[in-house]
Amino acid sequence: MGKKMTLLMFSGEYDKAMAALILANSAREMNIDVTIFFSFWGLFLLRDPNVMSTEDKTTYEKMFGMMTPKGPEELPLSKMNFSGLGKQMLLEMMKDDEAPRLIDFLEGARKKGVRFYGCKLSMDIMGFKKEELIPELEVVTAQKYLEDSLESDIQLFI
Amino acid sequence: MGKKMTLLMFSGEYDKAMAALILANSAREMNIDVTIFFSFWGLFLLRDPNVMSTEDKTTYEKMFGMMTPKGPEELPLSKMNFSGLGKQMLLEMMKDDEAPRLIDFLEGARKKGVRFYGCKLSMDIMGFKKEELIPELEVVTAQKYLEDSLESDIQLFI
Amino acid sequence: MGKKMTLLMFSGEYDKAMAALILANSAREMNIDVTIFFSFWGLFLLRDPNVMSTEDKTTYEKMFGMMTPKGPEELPLSKMNFSGLGKQMLLEMMKDDEAPRLIDFLEGARKKGVRFYGCKLSMDIMGFKKEELIPELEVVTAQKYLEDSLESDIQLFI
Repeated sequence: MGKKMTLLMFSGEYDKAMAALILANSAREMNIDVTIFFSFWGLFLLRDPNVMSTEDKTTYEKMFGMMTPKGPEELPLSKMNFSGLGKQMLLEMMKDDEAPRLIDFLEGARKKGVRFYGCKLSMDIMGFKKEELIPELEVVTAQKYLEDSLESDIQLFI
Repeated sequence: MGKKMTLLMFSGEYDKAMAALILANSAREMNIDVTIFFSFWGLFLLRDPNVMSTEDKTTYEKMFGMMTPKGPEELPLSKMNFSGLGKQMLLEMMKDDEAPRLIDFLEGARKKGVRFYGCKLSMDIMGFKKEELIPELEVVTAQKYLEDSLESDIQLFI
Repeated sequence: MGKKMTLLMFSGEYDKAMAALILANSAREMNIDVTIFFSFWGLFLLRDPNVMSTEDKTTYEKMFGMMTPKGPEELPLSKMNFSGLGKQMLLEMMKDDEAPRLIDFLEGARKKGVRFYGCKLSMDIMGFKKEELIPELEVVTAQKYLEDSLESDIQLFI
């Protein structure tokens, strides 16, 4: 029977998202079934920078949507961000090594059939609508995450 | 045989504690056995805000006890805390959605029979006494955590 | 058959490294096989403070090497670091309890036969050379980590 990995992506930072997506891409290349459950800040990664709905949003939800990163390239580093300078430096170092960027790993994961789950409770609280996030996203509850996780060989909270 | 989940709660932040306790409550509703091992900053969540012992504490331990969050409602956010403003905004957004607060999830976990372990070494270093923390807490070593973890279907470090 | 634990050490902070190495030492005492895969900031822990190569490094890589912590004792706390004051306080509290320091737990892990893996991609990007890190380190890919992790009873992302 096939192997499974389930990641719980809680953090909303460039470097942690890199780690998650590198694992997801590598796992798919090894034919491991991969599900990522995005909750809280993790949802920032999946935002489409070109779609921002204000319909059915409270004032707080609109403010929150405007103040927070929109999609992979806007995520800050978890350390040494220095208002973006540290991140710029890391990006230059990645370019020198011809390493793919976060957006490339995200595209890779989508093409390779990683399953994308969004936490319903987090989306309700933050006011994110399904159409503001990547189209593959399925909106599920924590229970669904736990069911998948129970059957997985690898589970990580990132 | 029953399924088990063991969480290692290392972080002392409102949003990460929410994530841990939502998982714990959901898992109990699915009849999954749940243990949370609280170490380092994670212990802040279990402090009783009305009990602060100074007996048998060094000066550093007393200072540390005063400077750090006392119980669930005092925990900061891991991101966007903005000296409490960001947290206030999140709390308002949760209220708009009638989402329970952290304290409710903690009460729920206690009522639903989640097992609470406190890391002995962390408690010794930080100077926290058993009577300053929730009464259900059992003080155990890292070895006890590992024994439980080995038998678990889900393990996460939060 | 023997039990196995695989840690993915992503963070580069004193307290998180303590947590990882306490688990690693305790697990080895219980005869559990332990592998730690160091990626991103986690590699800082393994730097030899006395060896710093500038050969074959780009300007960014040299700068990065100089700006970032060199070995266990230079790592900051993940919380309450206060430019090192909070860390100093924690170290004093640890001394009062005769708790070992991070460097002792690292030495313990090396003596007890913990397996040390370094993430090849992270080392390439950050410009760290094998000779700048502890001699036990094996440089491996994410796939190797996943293979080990699939066979492990405990996996944590720290």
